[in-house]
Amino acid sequence: MKLLNLDHVAVAVENLDDALAGYAQRYGVAPLYRETVESQGVEEAMIAVGGSFVQLLQPLGPETPVGRFLSKNGEGLHHVAFAVSSIEAALEHLAAEGAKLIDTEPRVGGRGARIAFVHPADLGGTLIELVELSDG
Amino acid sequence: MKLLNLDHVAVAVENLDDALAGYAQRYGVAPLYRETVESQGVEEAMIAVGGSFVQLLQPLGPETPVGRFLSKNGEGLHHVAFAVSSIEAALEHLAAEGAKLIDTEPRVGGRGARIAFVHPADLGGTLIELVELSDG
Repeated sequence: MKLLNLDHVAVAVENLDDALAGYAQRYGVAPLYRETVESQGVEEAMIAVGGSFVQLLQPLGPETPVGRFLSKNGEGLHHVAFAVSSIEAALEHLAAEGAKLIDTEPRVGGRGARIAFVHPADLGGTLIELVELSDG
Repeated sequence: MKLLNLDHVAVAVENLDDALAGYAQRYGVAPLYRETVESQGVEEAMIAVGGSFVQLLQPLGPETPVGRFLSKNGEGLHHVAFAVSSIEAALEHLAAEGAKLIDTEPRVGGRGARIAFVHPADLGGTLIELVELSDG
């Protein structure tokens, strides 16, 4: 297991346009990417900050993971994502460790990256995403 | 306002030793710094991941901000910190914007950095820390 980077920290928001306007006004930043990821039930925007991103997530509906998060918690920090060189190697290591995985196999997320989530009950109450970037 | 970097994402934990052992086992990472910051009521550890840090925060007692966060929410993501070149300029801009600030003047945090917090009610339900690092 080798973490390459803190790829992004994700924030669940009710309205992506409003959140992006807020980030522009407050912090002078704008998204590099914006896309709908149907498989995750979100529209997402990626704001580059140094070598990492702030990812803003608006759910596509209330019965999505991020929609349920918003209903329960309101807007706020949702997960943190670490870039890894090999997501298979990372998942193999975590499975051998007995980690509580949400995804035992990689799936495709935004930016065409291969991703997998580790359950927040595994460590520090934190939903952790592993990302293998295709240009990595 | 110019964000230089995503300096760190902070996680509130019940027990710093246990959390560090978990990060070591699961992700093969170890802290670069560990220190008690009395003014913030925490013992903190900083784990370098790429050009950013994961900051683990254990409260010094239940009646501290992080202690109250744990009582209410349990362990989990606590705040995100952006590095800025001038914290005075950043706070001046945010005040002019009408942002809801926790700190209107910088104070000293871990690593001797000058820091200030923006209230989660300001944007995206997210507690945001601004950090001006002394090594620039």
